[in-house]
Amino acid sequence: MSKKIAKKKQIDNAEPDLDFVERMRHTLSHVMAAAVKQIYQDVKFGIGPAIENGFYYDIDFGDTKISDTDLSKIEKKMRGIIQRKFKMVRIEADRQDALNWAISTGQTLKKELIEELPESETISFYAMVAGKDTDIAGKNVDKLESDQNVIFLDLCKGPHVESSDELEHFKLIRVAGAYWRGDEKREMLTRLYGVAFQSEEELAEYLKRQEEAKARDHRKLGKELDLFTFSDLVGAGLPLFTPRGTVLRDVMANYSLSLRARAGFSRVWTPHITKVDLYKASGHYAKFGDELFMVHSQVNGEEFAMKPMNCPHHAQIFASRPRTYKEMPVRYMEATTDYRDEKTGELGGLSRVRSLTQDDSHVFCRSTQIKGEIQQLVSIIRELYETVGMSKLRARLSYRSNEDKYLGDPELWKMAQGQIKEAAIENNLDFFEAEGEAAFYGPKIDFMAEDAIGREHQVATVQLDFVQPERFGLEFTNEKGEKERPVMIHHATLGSIERFLSVFIEHTAGWFPFWAAPEQVRILTVNDQITDYVSEVTDILQKIVLNKPLKYNELRFSADMSADSLGKKIRRATEMKIPCVLIVGPKDAEAKEVSIRIHDESADGGTREEKVKIAKLKEYLEKL
Amino acid sequence: MSKKIAKKKQIDNAEPDLDFVERMRHTLSHVMAAAVKQIYQDVKFGIGPAIENGFYYDIDFGDTKISDTDLSKIEKKMRGIIQRKFKMVRIEADRQDALNWAISTGQTLKKELIEELPESETISFYAMVAGKDTDIAGKNVDKLESDQNVIFLDLCKGPHVESSDELEHFKLIRVAGAYWRGDEKREMLTRLYGVAFQSEEELAEYLKRQEEAKARDHRKLGKELDLFTFSDLVGAGLPLFTPRGTVLRDVMANYSLSLRARAGFSRVWTPHITKVDLYKASGHYAKFGDELFMVHSQVNGEEFAMKPMNCPHHAQIFASRPRTYKEMPVRYMEATTDYRDEKTGELGGLSRVRSLTQDDSHVFCRSTQIKGEIQQLVSIIRELYETVGMSKLRARLSYRSNEDKYLGDPELWKMAQGQIKEAAIENNLDFFEAEGEAAFYGPKIDFMAEDAIGREHQVATVQLDFVQPERFGLEFTNEKGEKERPVMIHHATLGSIERFLSVFIEHTAGWFPFWAAPEQVRILTVNDQITDYVSEVTDILQKIVLNKPLKYNELRFSADMSADSLGKKIRRATEMKIPCVLIVGPKDAEAKEVSIRIHDESADGGTREEKVKIAKLKEYLEKL
Repeated sequence: MSKKIAKKKQIDNAEPDLDFVERMRHTLSHVMAAAVKQIYQDVKFGIGPAIENGFYYDIDFGDTKISDTDLSKIEKKMRGIIQRKFKMVRIEADRQDALNWAISTGQTLKKELIEELPESETISFYAMVAGKDTDIAGKNVDKLESDQNVIFLDLCKGPHVESSDELEHFKLIRVAGAYWRGDEKREMLTRLYGVAFQSEEELAEYLKRQEEAKARDHRKLGKELDLFTFSDLVGAGLPLFTPRGTVLRDVMANYSLSLRARAGFSRVWTPHITKVDLYKASGHYAKFGDELFMVHSQVNGEEFAMKPMNCPHHAQIFASRPRTYKEMPVRYMEATTDYRDEKTGELGGLSRVRSLTQDDSHVFCRSTQIKGEIQQLVSIIRELYETVGMSKLRARLSYRSNEDKYLGDPELWKMAQGQIKEAAIENNLDFFEAEGEAAFYGPKIDFMAEDAIGREHQVATVQLDFVQPERFGLEFTNEKGEKERPVMIHHATLGSIERFLSVFIEHTAGWFPFWAAPEQVRILTVNDQITDYVSEVTDILQKIVLNKPLKYNELRFSADMSADSLGKKIRRATEMKIPCVLIVGPKDAEAKEVSIRIHDESADGGTREEKVKIAKLKEYLEKL
Repeated sequence: MSKKIAKKKQIDNAEPDLDFVERMRHTLSHVMAAAVKQIYQDVKFGIGPAIENGFYYDIDFGDTKISDTDLSKIEKKMRGIIQRKFKMVRIEADRQDALNWAISTGQTLKKELIEELPESETISFYAMVAGKDTDIAGKNVDKLESDQNVIFLDLCKGPHVESSDELEHFKLIRVAGAYWRGDEKREMLTRLYGVAFQSEEELAEYLKRQEEAKARDHRKLGKELDLFTFSDLVGAGLPLFTPRGTVLRDVMANYSLSLRARAGFSRVWTPHITKVDLYKASGHYAKFGDELFMVHSQVNGEEFAMKPMNCPHHAQIFASRPRTYKEMPVRYMEATTDYRDEKTGELGGLSRVRSLTQDDSHVFCRSTQIKGEIQQLVSIIRELYETVGMSKLRARLSYRSNEDKYLGDPELWKMAQGQIKEAAIENNLDFFEAEGEAAFYGPKIDFMAEDAIGREHQVATVQLDFVQPERFGLEFTNEKGEKERPVMIHHATLGSIERFLSVFIEHTAGWFPFWAAPEQVRILTVNDQITDYVSEVTDILQKIVLNKPLKYNELRFSADMSADSLGKKIRRATEMKIPCVLIVGPKDAEAKEVSIRIHDESADGGTREEKVKIAKLKEYLEKL
C-alpha cells in the first residue's frame, strides 16, 4: 500500500495543492532528516515523501547500522529542532548552483536527482530557517548550507507547512531497508518511517490500532500457534503447513467447497503444469506470458508452465465430450494450488505467496442463466463470510465503459450487466457500480469484507467471461439442435486460501471459532489419580462429530496429563488458544462432570466457566 | 517389461543355453522376417529377439505402411514357410564376407551391427534350409543368399530350434513403432509382435487373458465411463479428471488417509516446488538432479525444481521446532502431486504419468519404535487391499548385502532388519527375503497384489531411511536430555493414485464396489406419471450416508426421467456401470417400493433383482 501511495506523492509534489495533513507530514520528513544529520553527520539523503498516515525518508547511513532502538533518539532530536521555531522557506536555484550544493555537501543521491531533472524545470529547495530574518530569497544554496540560521536545506518541490508551529502529533515507528530508486541493483538505503496526524487523539488511535494489528500479526501467530513454517531450503513465498495449519486449511477449503457442492458444483482435478499451448489458445500467454513460472524438462527439452489459474484447464474438461442444453449449467470446482511469480521483496507470511491454493470454480452456462448462477454464488459468499464473523460485506459491480477495449458482443454485456445488478438488488447487497472497471472479457462483482479491527479486505469475486468460451470454441447443442456458446463464470469464495488464512488469523487473533480450531478441546488433569476418568471422557469426545457449519467435522482434542501444575497447563492451553478446556479432578470424577472453560470474548476476562455432566457433554460441545 | 526382456535376450544370444520355448520364439522371429521378405521384398531388418510370451522383429518397410490388418497375411505366409519343412543351420562367416552379404542385400542395419562387433567375435548366421541337403558349412554367406534351398538367411548368434517341426503354437498380434537402437534420433522402424507357446492351450489361454485385459483396458474404460481425459493443449502424461474420475480419486485417497489418521498420522501440506537447495541438502540432487523438472522464474531468474517426492519437505516440517521423545513418533501424511519427467514414449493412460499424486506419509521415530510402526502400516496395507478385493498380497523384504554401498550404522541396519522380519512374521505375511535389494539408505518391504485376472502389480512400499535424518540433522531430545536422531519411514498405501486407479479400473473392469462408484445409484422411471414418487425416493436417497469402509460417504445418485424406453435407460445405466439401479413405475409408487437391480458378478447374468419397500431403502443401501 505505502509504496503505491509514495509513488502518487512523488507525482503530487509537482502540484502544490496538498492538504494540510499531507504538507505537515512532508515537512516532518525534512525535520527527521535534519535530526539525522545532526546526530550522524555523514549521511546521504534519497527521497522523503509524505505517505498514508505519515512520512519516510530513505537515507544512506554509510557503515552505521540503524535499528528501531535508534528512533527515540532521533525523535527527541526532532522535537528539539521543532522547539527552535523555524519557517519553511522556498528558494529557487539554477542548475549549476544546485549541483555545486550537492557536490560540496556530498549529497550524491541528490546530485543524481538534479541531473535527471528536465532542463525546463525550475529547481527549488526548502530551507528550515530559524530566527527572525527568514528572507533568503536570491541567496546561493551552496552558501546557505553554512548559514547558522538555516537548520536544514533540502532539494524539494514542496509544498510544506509554513512553520514549525504546525508540527505536533507524530511518532517515529520503524526502520526498514529500501533500494535506491526501488532498483534491486542499486544500493540499499535505510528507510525511517514516521506517522503524523492532525490531533493527539488520532495519533493515539492509530498507534493503538497498530498495536492491535501487531498482536494479531498472522506471521507471529502462525509461529506461536504452530500453523505454518518457512524453510530457507524450500524458498521464500512457499509456506509449509504443519498439522495444525493443515487442519485450518482443510476445514476452510472443505467448508467452502461444501457450500458449492450443495449448489450443484462437482469437483474436478487438474495437473499443476501444462504446455504453454493452453495459454496461447486461451489468450493468457499474449498478456501474461512473461510472468509465468516456466518448467523445463531436462530429459527431452520440453517446455511447460506452472498454472497461475485454472480456467483453461477446466475449459478442457468441459470440451472433453459433447454437451447438450439439458446438462447446462455445468459447474466445476477444485481446491488446487496455482503458482505465481511474485517478487521476493513482496512476499510476506501468507498474505502474498508463490504457491496459492484457490477454492476455484467455473460455471459454464447459457446467457439466460447468468442471474440465477450469480444469485447462488452471492448467497454462498454471504453465508461463508457471515459464518467466519465478517458479515459486513460491500460489493463493487464493475461494468464496461464505452471504450472499445472490451471483447464480446455488446448486447451480451448489456444483458449480463442487467442480470448482475438485478441479482445484487434482489439479494439486498450493499453495492456500488463502477463503470469502466470490468475486465476486458466480462463484467464482475468484487466483494470487500471488514475484519474485527475495522480493516477492509478484498475477498471473493464473481467474474463473467465471454472470451474464453470463444477462444476454446466451447459449445453445447441447444433445443433446436444448433450449437450454442456458453458463458463462463469464474468464482472463488475464499480466493487464495493462504491469503484468506492471513486475514482470518488476524481477524480472530488466533481464537478461531470452535468448529474451525485446529485443537478444539484439551483435557487438563488436576492430578494423576484420574486416568480412568480421563479415558471415560476421551471415549465420549471420540464420538463427537460436529455438523455445523461443516458436516462430518470430527472433534479434535488432546489431553494434557503431565505432572505440571494446573495453572501451568491452563496457561499452556491459553497460549495455544484452545477454545475449550475441560478440567478434570477427583471431585469431577466423582460427580461425573467436567469443569469447562470456554473462550468467550463477551464474557469477563474472555472466559466463561461452567460445570457440565459428562452425560450432557456430547450435546453441549455439539452446540458450541 | 518387453524392453527389459529384450535387452536381456540380446545378451543371452551370446550364450546358447536358452530353453526350448525361448529358442522356438527366436526361430519364429526369423520365420516372420522370411515371410515379410517374401511379401514386401525391399525391407531392411533390425533385430528380432525372443521376448516374454513371444517374439518381435524391428523392420524398415521403407514407404510402405504396415498395420494390424496386415498381420494375418504375414502369419499365413509364415505357416506356408513352416510347411516347407526346413532346418535351422548355423554357419560362420568372416567379417568381410558378412559385410559383403549386408551390402549386396541392402541390409544397412545389419551392416551397422556387423561393424560394431568386436574383432575377436566369431560372426555367425542362421539359415533356414529346405530339402535334404542341409550341409552348407563353409559356404560363403553372400552366395548362399541366392541358394534356392535357403529360405532365409540372417546374421544371428542363435540359438534356435533344430527344425520347422517345432514351430506350431503362435500368433502375430500387434504392430508398433520402435526407434532403431532405441534412439529417438535414429529412424523409426516397424515392430511386429508375435506370441508363441508350447501348447495350443497355453496360446489360447494367453490370448483369452489378453482379450480380457483389452476389455478392461483402463484407457478405454476411462473414456467410456467419463473418468478422465487428456488434452493436447495440456500435454501427454498430464491427465485431467472429470467429476466422475475425481470422485474415484477422492474416495480412494480419503479412504487411504483415513486408515492412517486412525493410526495417528496428521495431514500436512507442502508446496509443489522448492529451491534445489533442498535436494542438495537431502542428497537427492547428486543422484537425480538431472531428472528434475526445473522451474524458472522469468521475473528474477530464480531456479526451482518441481518436487518428485515429499520426504525432504516433510523433514523440514519436523525440523521447524524442537522435538522431545514425548511426541515421538511424529507421523505426517499428505495426498499431494509429485512431478516426474517421464519420457513421452513411456506415458500411457494412468499407468505412467508426469503428475503423480501420492498418498504419501513419513514417520519420524526412535530406532526402538520401528517394529510397531511397521506393524501398523502392514495392517493398513492389508485392510486397504482386502477392501478393494486384492487380498492376495506378497511381500519382499529387501535387506542390505555385505557390499559397502549402504549408508548408516550397520548395527542399526541389523536391528531394523530384525524388526522388519518380526513384523512380517507376526502379521502372517506371505513374504520372501531378498538380500542386496535394499535401498542404499535403508531396508524396505515391497508389496505385490494380484488382480482379478491374475496379474501381479507392485503396490505399497514401506521404506526405512537412516540417511535423510542425518543429512537434515533431524533430532529430538531424549529422556536424558541428549539429542537423538530419529529414523524415517516412507510409506504410501496406494502409491501413485493415478497408477492405483489404472490397476483398480482394470481389476474391477469398471464395476467399482458400491462405496467407491462415482455414481452409485440411478433411478429409472417407467413413465412420466410418477414425478412425485421420484421426489419421495430422492428425499430418502439424499439422507443416505455410507460409513464403511469410508466414513461420511454421502450417496451419489441421479435420476433418468427422460422419455426414453426403460430398456434404453437400463442399457445406458449398464454402459456407465452404475452398480445399483432403482426402477420405479406406477405400481411401485402404489406399493411404496422400488425394483432394485444390483450388479453382482456371482449372480446369473451378473445382475440380482429384488423389490424393496422404500421404508427399508436406506437400511438396504447402507448395507450394500
